[in-house]
Amino acid sequence: MRIRVLGAAAGGGFPQWNCGCGNCREARSGNPDAVPQTQECVAISADGERWVLLNASPEIRAQIESCPALHPRAPRHSPISAVVLTNGDLDHILGLLSLRESHPLVVYATERVRQGFIDGNVLYRTLERFPGQVTWKVLAMGHKIALSGVESESAGLHIEAIAAPGKPPVHLEGLAETDPGENIGVVIHDPATGKRLAYFSAVGGLTPAMREAIDRADCVFFDGTFWSSDELVALGLGTKRAEDMAHLPVGGAEGSLELLAGARVPRRLYIHINNTNPLLRTRSRERAQVEARGWEIARDGMEFTL
Amino acid sequence: MRIRVLGAAAGGGFPQWNCGCGNCREARSGNPDAVPQTQECVAISADGERWVLLNASPEIRAQIESCPALHPRAPRHSPISAVVLTNGDLDHILGLLSLRESHPLVVYATERVRQGFIDGNVLYRTLERFPGQVTWKVLAMGHKIALSGVESESAGLHIEAIAAPGKPPVHLEGLAETDPGENIGVVIHDPATGKRLAYFSAVGGLTPAMREAIDRADCVFFDGTFWSSDELVALGLGTKRAEDMAHLPVGGAEGSLELLAGARVPRRLYIHINNTNPLLRTRSRERAQVEARGWEIARDGMEFTL
Repeated sequence: MRIRVLGAAAGGGFPQWNCGCGNCREARSGNPDAVPQTQECVAISADGERWVLLNASPEIRAQIESCPALHPRAPRHSPISAVVLTNGDLDHILGLLSLRESHPLVVYATERVRQGFIDGNVLYRTLERFPGQVTWKVLAMGHKIALSGVESESAGLHIEAIAAPGKPPVHLEGLAETDPGENIGVVIHDPATGKRLAYFSAVGGLTPAMREAIDRADCVFFDGTFWSSDELVALGLGTKRAEDMAHLPVGGAEGSLELLAGARVPRRLYIHINNTNPLLRTRSRERAQVEARGWEIARDGMEFTL
Repeated sequence: MRIRVLGAAAGGGFPQWNCGCGNCREARSGNPDAVPQTQECVAISADGERWVLLNASPEIRAQIESCPALHPRAPRHSPISAVVLTNGDLDHILGLLSLRESHPLVVYATERVRQGFIDGNVLYRTLERFPGQVTWKVLAMGHKIALSGVESESAGLHIEAIAAPGKPPVHLEGLAETDPGENIGVVIHDPATGKRLAYFSAVGGLTPAMREAIDRADCVFFDGTFWSSDELVALGLGTKRAEDMAHLPVGGAEGSLELLAGARVPRRLYIHINNTNPLLRTRSRERAQVEARGWEIARDGMEFTL
């Protein structure tokens, strides 16, 4: 399974347009210790020909152009077979609206995320220009299904959704009851090699099912949004704690670094990293700490094979 | 008046994600004759400190980062005073949804474009996180008003809206009666210098009022979407003619190059250029033809002062 990180940053990207924090200033100054990152999106492929995107960031056009394997091979074509949405946050879904131009799309999501994107969203009509422009495939928790593209062409991979503690996207807050399909992680399984990728880019906690999926995986991408609970508060940039935004922080006694210390997964990467997070600085104390525990920090353009 | 082109391409950008036409292939190959361009957005400023964006492209984050004058000067800050929308097309409005992160915005648009963006658009709730997050200022045709930012801070510029032949955005087609506020051009006037910029980035025709505005201006940006009416049809990439999409082509006996041949405006640029347009190729016959008539082709990063 080929894995290409198209974007490693959390919503807003790094640097963030209206942020002048230390990290963002260093990124803008060209400091090689603070490399700019676009918003989270990862492309995976069993064969290097047909690709599946995990989430659709607002920066999807530049992200596709950054990766030759995703370029068209005909006057109208895309090697992108399908897009998987792990929740309905704008930094995960806005890119779908940039994949218009009358191109058929296959999108995997829970019923809740599908409805959240379609209901009351007049912009979605741009993806309804012809019958079958978007084919939705519903992810149900704990069911492994084959990933396929347009006209059921196999992507050579299987997917399983796992509920992850989360919250509704900001724009849907207060509109409906909470639902376990609001936020998921996925396990991508390559039956040809037996390799498994666990993908949990935004999680508010660690459940036994998540832990089991991670223990069985050959590689995990995990929520690296915040280093600490009070990261935004301490910098004077916000009033919400990491938990208020349904993100398990990396550091601290209750953070994911401790919680996953004994996980058996051989390759582990933090992704969806907020612009304020010290992990974005290659020489930070926090970065040294996670690297000493065998973690990597995902970065735009990173590519590897499982 | 400082003018900075943040993006020169039409919707979809150049290259376009699912397009393998000759232009897009050459752009991807790194041919210096076919330089990639992001989607249309122009920043203007009277003083170099407070900036106004003309349209909000989906690529707005990267476009802001590409221009140091638009970077924050405090932990939470933006030199962007206001955004002007010339119509409701997704390539002009999606960027607003990337200017969230609880930052107050001032947006100028016609009542029709404002309603088209707000009504039935649940995503807009991300810009309603606190009272006054977005202040809408309604543009009425033919009325010159002062451009101002948050808390009525003057941007030092005036704006006048001029109706331009157009059509509703694809996602709103069939939902309401046509309205002259659907699509506009604007004249930006700097009272300190007397200079005028006429901005008509998407127009289906040339009216006497548009012509008069262009004749009075010191610089015009004009719709350069298509070179010819049958550009997409001839390339086998679509069935619609330029006119079907409400774009006046550049070339031909009825094209804008002929129609504006006698215009008195000293500086004239084509912008909003579709990926298929031969004007994107610096050595094309068509490019030589428009340059011989005194036109420039806008390009990302271009900056000049009126």
